[in-house]
Amino acid sequence: MKKLINDPKNVVDEAVVGFEAAHGDLVTVSHDPIYIARKDAPVAGKVGLVSGGGSGHEPLHGGFVGFGMLDAAVPGPVFTSPTPDPILAATKAVDAGKGVLHIVKNYTGDVLNFETAADLASAEDIEVRTVIVDDDVAVKDSLYTAGRRGVAGTVLVEKIAGAAAERGDDLDAVAAVATKVNAQVRTMGVALTPCVVPHAGEPSFVLADDEIEIGIGIHGEPGRERIKLEPADAIVDRLLGPILEDLPFGSGDEVLLLVNGMGGTPQVELYIVFKHAAEVLAEKGITVTRSLVGNFVTSLEMQGVSISVLKLDEELTGLWDAPVQTAALRWGR
Amino acid sequence: MKKLINDPKNVVDEAVVGFEAAHGDLVTVSHDPIYIARKDAPVAGKVGLVSGGGSGHEPLHGGFVGFGMLDAAVPGPVFTSPTPDPILAATKAVDAGKGVLHIVKNYTGDVLNFETAADLASAEDIEVRTVIVDDDVAVKDSLYTAGRRGVAGTVLVEKIAGAAAERGDDLDAVAAVATKVNAQVRTMGVALTPCVVPHAGEPSFVLADDEIEIGIGIHGEPGRERIKLEPADAIVDRLLGPILEDLPFGSGDEVLLLVNGMGGTPQVELYIVFKHAAEVLAEKGITVTRSLVGNFVTSLEMQGVSISVLKLDEELTGLWDAPVQTAALRWGR
Repeated sequence: MKKLINDPKNVVDEAVVGFEAAHGDLVTVSHDPIYIARKDAPVAGKVGLVSGGGSGHEPLHGGFVGFGMLDAAVPGPVFTSPTPDPILAATKAVDAGKGVLHIVKNYTGDVLNFETAADLASAEDIEVRTVIVDDDVAVKDSLYTAGRRGVAGTVLVEKIAGAAAERGDDLDAVAAVATKVNAQVRTMGVALTPCVVPHAGEPSFVLADDEIEIGIGIHGEPGRERIKLEPADAIVDRLLGPILEDLPFGSGDEVLLLVNGMGGTPQVELYIVFKHAAEVLAEKGITVTRSLVGNFVTSLEMQGVSISVLKLDEELTGLWDAPVQTAALRWGR
Repeated sequence: MKKLINDPKNVVDEAVVGFEAAHGDLVTVSHDPIYIARKDAPVAGKVGLVSGGGSGHEPLHGGFVGFGMLDAAVPGPVFTSPTPDPILAATKAVDAGKGVLHIVKNYTGDVLNFETAADLASAEDIEVRTVIVDDDVAVKDSLYTAGRRGVAGTVLVEKIAGAAAERGDDLDAVAAVATKVNAQVRTMGVALTPCVVPHAGEPSFVLADDEIEIGIGIHGEPGRERIKLEPADAIVDRLLGPILEDLPFGSGDEVLLLVNGMGGTPQVELYIVFKHAAEVLAEKGITVTRSLVGNFVTSLEMQGVSISVLKLDEELTGLWDAPVQTAALRWGR
């Protein structure tokens, strides 16, 4: 295992200290229990947004804390859900009396621990709504999931719901927007290489030198099939097909196209993927009006990519374009 | 070789098409000869900024084309300098009569080809100044270099000179600011793994499973020494020592700290590096007042990191904070 770490046990704690040192203009960090909050939280008159989950997917979620997006992020150990305590503490820290939305990727541990935290918050008279993100079309149930997994579409939910909260929507309205984004986004990914969880010390799965895994999960959990390496365009076809059939997307739709690197993929490859994905969409009469390319929901050093397509309308487009100021996504303020 | 590509020969051409499809709101692309220009170029009354070099270092340079930074970027083949023709074409495309600054990383091919392009532009009555970036303290001369190599500090030169041009500085003044940034920034990097140039098909160098290369170049060219893998903090000490001695930096200095991923390093590791680097600087009485963490000057899928320290003053800090709107760096507009 070759990593820039000191001790596998301290990876998350040390990274969070580094994050605070780098982004102290945007966030404050609680170290015990551990969560990252927007510097000006709680923001008067605003619904609070809290997300979180296992670490190793950075910049998700801490990189999305700030103006126009999340109020707090709760990082668990690598690929392991945070416990209810820090989720509850983050929820209380960002509540300004307007209630708090939990944005939760659909993994059994995350769902359970956010639910427990929501119950505890309710007992302290904080109103909590929860939106479960389950955008991955690859598999129905999986190693850590009842139902579909929540993957890169989470970034779009967090950005757009964050903009709704920032403009002053109430808790029901923010939850409704988040639910709508999740309903209209579909994602599928591929892995070329596995990743190594620091405390495990060995790859989470093994792929032959000429093998890739279609429909990979963000923890390296199995997807649909293992096939021989193919040209990028053929791989894109394999990912986009199930995505477009699922909603379904069709001619006349306007969409946001997100090409997300899994952590170890060179950016030049992400743009090769974007090129063909945009071409396929254009052939089907689907117009890409917004785009995002980069590493947003990663799996440590895994090489691979996921493609997400979000069906837009005037409201979602406007909220996407709204100013945002976080470590990993910022514009227009 | 496991890559998301179609044909090694077409990697750059296809990536640039994808880049244009994703960022058509910011840039226009010329495909023959190949360069990426700011959408509103030439900008009336403004000095033009052109950079470029071999591909494989993305987001450098195309990701930095836009308001407040570069007017054009000229991507060569992977790890290979662009020829004078596209550099000349880009120079002409962004010249608004106020002259053009070439920002050139110090590699023999780049220096030569930008110089030829500058001569040709002069023959067409375009005033060109050139600033050579050579921030890498690792080695004096190297495989492709007379003198020090230009590495991650290039991003800081491009951002700060871009802001000076945007506020209306004339060509001499923009060149002076770029020269000043280069004079005040120092960088050193480390590789944990090599990278594979697509048309070569095999790793550019070989490291044992427990070996790292201190002072690596961004093309995988040799650095100072190969050592056994160490804890992150010890590696940071090895990089920061030569950086801080070189300028030298000292107590009372205010600096920008850039922790740059080489392409395949998980973000969680970059923040572990940032943590210790910030601690070492604090111990020496050096204050980190600005920071940047992420993949900015990469070497395809190489795992590794570089650390850059830029000595700030009021002018440079103000120019760093100025609005910027590019694919890879944006805030405040």
